[in-house]
Amino acid sequence: MSQIISESERAAFYKTVYSRRDVRREFLPKAIPKAVLSRILTAAHHAPSVGFMQPWDFIVIESDRTKAFVKQLFTEANQAAADMLTGERKKQYKRLKLEGIQEAPLNICVTCDRSRTGDFVLGRTSNLDMDLYSTVCAIQNLWLAARAENIGMGWVSILDENKLKQHLNIPERIIPVAYLCLGYVSQFHEKPDLERTGWLARRQVDQHLHSEKWQKD
Amino acid sequence: MSQIISESERAAFYKTVYSRRDVRREFLPKAIPKAVLSRILTAAHHAPSVGFMQPWDFIVIESDRTKAFVKQLFTEANQAAADMLTGERKKQYKRLKLEGIQEAPLNICVTCDRSRTGDFVLGRTSNLDMDLYSTVCAIQNLWLAARAENIGMGWVSILDENKLKQHLNIPERIIPVAYLCLGYVSQFHEKPDLERTGWLARRQVDQHLHSEKWQKD
Repeated sequence: MSQIISESERAAFYKTVYSRRDVRREFLPKAIPKAVLSRILTAAHHAPSVGFMQPWDFIVIESDRTKAFVKQLFTEANQAAADMLTGERKKQYKRLKLEGIQEAPLNICVTCDRSRTGDFVLGRTSNLDMDLYSTVCAIQNLWLAARAENIGMGWVSILDENKLKQHLNIPERIIPVAYLCLGYVSQFHEKPDLERTGWLARRQVDQHLHSEKWQKD
Repeated sequence: MSQIISESERAAFYKTVYSRRDVRREFLPKAIPKAVLSRILTAAHHAPSVGFMQPWDFIVIESDRTKAFVKQLFTEANQAAADMLTGERKKQYKRLKLEGIQEAPLNICVTCDRSRTGDFVLGRTSNLDMDLYSTVCAIQNLWLAARAENIGMGWVSILDENKLKQHLNIPERIIPVAYLCLGYVSQFHEKPDLERTGWLARRQVDQHLHSEKWQKD
């Protein structure tokens, strides 16, 4: 395999990046073949990790019982979130669909083992959270690999982490970083749900660029 | 643009993922054209973000003075890290090259604005760190986009965050999540540096898979 990425290969990469969505509503009941799931998880496993720690694990969930439990966790946490809002914003929030836990054929809980490879982790000596960040790099690889397989993914972050941990028998030292829903989809929307529905606008990348030092706000 | 990712497009995506490396030693002094940098940062900006918060900023650094300052921060933090080790492991650590701050034509500090879009962030109500995780998703997009442009990148995590923040005039509420070095390279190695040099071994992805619940350790 040549090391050089060609122009057409680069275009394929960018197509994957720009057509990736956070999917909640469009899941189809079609099963994901084992070989496809294996490719997606192997790509996640080839993310960068601090000190080559590879701190992640993947709990693959297919049972309706576990999904129903997690959906209940979401419903509780989502009600609490809605109650932080008032008026029109609250109504707008409650109209949004924010998860596809039961519709997605597959759920994956991605965790971080904070003590994998021992006490000294190369590169984690100035910032202890680098292992969590490595796990998020694996999640983003997983998300893009799913998209490259024409599979949609949604990240459900509105959940009580401790209750989830207990239900999935996750040991104390292991942190659940993400709860993901995966499945084939009816479509990938052109724009993110929160942009389409007017929750917030897409910012321009130029607003986010600084030269040499932080520019005054 | 068709929504379907074809088999050859998927192969191009996986080629990018598997040939990405954490680069420290192989940077060439060749400048990165503005249009290429712009494509890389725009891909980063199209990462997923919690509540469509887009909390990231990118400080692009080219001056030798800033690079020399950051290199000094690395040298201090790296000495402190080495002093945590003893014997053969310490010798092995000190032989590793862990950054290419001054060799890389471009450095980028990626930050997270924790209060962007106000107090209520959709999806961040159960886990306050979701904005930091979104920023890491942008960093992984950036890393892969750089690779797709045949540009190497290294993440320097051995730095005092507060000193860096002060030097770059970064406001209190903004967190520097990553300090990155980018440039064209003489080669992308087949394996990560820490695997090639025997610091740690590549684990098998199967060791990281659990079905339905966490399997006993």
